[in-house]
Amino acid sequence: MSTADRWLLPDGIEEVLPPQARGVEQLRRHLLDDFDRWGYDFVIPPALEYLDSLLTGTARDLDLQTFKVTDQLSGRLMGLSADTTPQTARIDAHSWAQEGVSRLCYCRTVFHAKAPSILAGRTPTQIGAELYGEAGAGADIEIISLMLNTLQQAGLQDLHLDIGHVGIFKAFSAKAQLSNVAEEKLFALLKVKCATDLDAWAEEYLTDPALTTAFKAIVRLQGGIEVLDQVAEKLAAVVPEVTGIIEHLKQVCQAIAARYNVPMYFDFTDLRGYNYHTGLVFAAYVPGYGDAVAQGGRYNETGAVFGRARPATGFSADLKVLAQLGRFAPTQADIVKAPAPYGQQQEQELLDLIAELRAQGTRVEVQLSGELPTNAARIELKDGQWKLIESN
Amino acid sequence: MSTADRWLLPDGIEEVLPPQARGVEQLRRHLLDDFDRWGYDFVIPPALEYLDSLLTGTARDLDLQTFKVTDQLSGRLMGLSADTTPQTARIDAHSWAQEGVSRLCYCRTVFHAKAPSILAGRTPTQIGAELYGEAGAGADIEIISLMLNTLQQAGLQDLHLDIGHVGIFKAFSAKAQLSNVAEEKLFALLKVKCATDLDAWAEEYLTDPALTTAFKAIVRLQGGIEVLDQVAEKLAAVVPEVTGIIEHLKQVCQAIAARYNVPMYFDFTDLRGYNYHTGLVFAAYVPGYGDAVAQGGRYNETGAVFGRARPATGFSADLKVLAQLGRFAPTQADIVKAPAPYGQQQEQELLDLIAELRAQGTRVEVQLSGELPTNAARIELKDGQWKLIESN
Repeated sequence: MSTADRWLLPDGIEEVLPPQARGVEQLRRHLLDDFDRWGYDFVIPPALEYLDSLLTGTARDLDLQTFKVTDQLSGRLMGLSADTTPQTARIDAHSWAQEGVSRLCYCRTVFHAKAPSILAGRTPTQIGAELYGEAGAGADIEIISLMLNTLQQAGLQDLHLDIGHVGIFKAFSAKAQLSNVAEEKLFALLKVKCATDLDAWAEEYLTDPALTTAFKAIVRLQGGIEVLDQVAEKLAAVVPEVTGIIEHLKQVCQAIAARYNVPMYFDFTDLRGYNYHTGLVFAAYVPGYGDAVAQGGRYNETGAVFGRARPATGFSADLKVLAQLGRFAPTQADIVKAPAPYGQQQEQELLDLIAELRAQGTRVEVQLSGELPTNAARIELKDGQWKLIESN
Repeated sequence: MSTADRWLLPDGIEEVLPPQARGVEQLRRHLLDDFDRWGYDFVIPPALEYLDSLLTGTARDLDLQTFKVTDQLSGRLMGLSADTTPQTARIDAHSWAQEGVSRLCYCRTVFHAKAPSILAGRTPTQIGAELYGEAGAGADIEIISLMLNTLQQAGLQDLHLDIGHVGIFKAFSAKAQLSNVAEEKLFALLKVKCATDLDAWAEEYLTDPALTTAFKAIVRLQGGIEVLDQVAEKLAAVVPEVTGIIEHLKQVCQAIAARYNVPMYFDFTDLRGYNYHTGLVFAAYVPGYGDAVAQGGRYNETGAVFGRARPATGFSADLKVLAQLGRFAPTQADIVKAPAPYGQQQEQELLDLIAELRAQGTRVEVQLSGELPTNAARIELKDGQWKLIESN
């Protein structure tokens, strides 16, 4: 391995250098402070857990994305956390089991064995917020509002929202008594969204003509808020649960539309996280970036395997992506150059002046070697006293 | 696996819950702000790298501590970073290769396959600062000062410093032309520090009687700053390089002693990181905690394998340990409870009041379910207007 190769990083793994790293850190603080003001308590989930805790129950989808290592102490397999949400659900179920509504937030590196898309890195800095204990529309509204607020704070513009609800397909699938094979085939087809193939699937697996008609209509219905009434109209007669779901969605989306000028797009065939999510799901996009910049949704069942199933919703984003896309402009304190203090005349006074300036928030860079630049703000000995000289 | 087992974390792996996590986050900001005011630029090194970059050259000591995973994209082995210092040296050598002095700092999780002691966790939050490009005492003084400042800011009291210098044993070993076997045996004996065994080793491996006499004296010399002159006196005649090293140490320690009231203890047989370090090494301790609370030293050669060997020194600590031992007291903004806004009378005014309070830095917790507590600061509708009611 040549010297030149040694600094090559694996694909999808990056380092963040000055001054970008300063921007990422400042955005982190900005967003976590906002989460705090919205009532969200910061937690630090473990970066590494036993695999059978990490991938338990509804988080099994994460299996392929999870790096595995052997615990030399127990011989058991551990996994690097690929998603903070199931870990937060475990915390809400057990170690921080509050009565009533509980709000948690986090910001830390997660690890993906395979990047979920060509744009995504394999070590995103996942920042997010999760709300437990409330099944009503108020919780969905709060989480979507907090997500939009977060993206606006990061400086992202021209946002739009994709909204779905896995409950509609869950109710449809239950009504149609779909086999696992039929469901799996359907999911594969929905990823491609070819209407002809979907129609052929319906002819093969749906026996009830009313369901078939409804299915063919639904897979063709995507668009603005008007889609909600159309979905209700086409599906409610055959799958009555849909009426309540559509009412819930309307309540949430009307509240968001009143506060945020963000176009919404509805698509009930987008079943990302179908095995994991249980209700309203959403993702935010900006023009020119193909992946979602933030996403989330309901996952009411996740806590059950840890002994406490609670209504749950939340969202998360990659802090590094937000800092990059939002062009978040970090602030920089005033910089003063100072001579290396040790061995100087009146050393103690120079050290005191440096400490005083730093206490005031100034960045004082000691020139350990070489001369002080004469055009920068600097500390100089004048008439036997150490003094701050402004830049010229 | 029972429900109860699923929340068991592996030994040495912890999660941090409210309100401790708030304290860790606030201490993190406090310390990173301090690093910034001292001129240190924040970097985010990758959490995962190819193993042959991560363990290259002087960092090979880390091999046993490093978790390995296979990169599914390249088939090559990657390692989870167990220590940020060699990665920062790589950054200084290549991707952030500044002329002259460069100062870098970081704060992130590192991973240890085996905890280095029974007190230590396996996922410490390593916070540290590294100074490149200056070999003089000024750099050692600055780094030790910044470390002591960091520990004081974290609230640690009754600090004491252990100081060593691997150069003394390196010069001695070169002079005595020790074989690898002799050196390895010596290191094993030095860990136990039994004088009889060390004397026996000297009789077996040292041929020069002057070196033997000097060796027997050095391994018995530990203590305060007076030890420096005694070491020079015993060793300088046979290993002349020692004179310069002792002068350097005196310069550093006198400067530290003038500014910090911290007892210092010298021991040149403490060869922790001997293969990695190249000069002055140090560690800080507090009473009642057996491990060092922070440590560091010179590692001038580390950048060489990446194409640029630079004088280098730095220190690091575990932020979570500092927050715990320093009993760092986090601040908490005022808390106001607000009714769930959606569907309320004058909904828009209520939302505006909540947003206004949050913009002022108040934490507003929306009561999504249940009644507002009547003794907390809260928002109530009075005479047709939403108003902030102070706690009673």
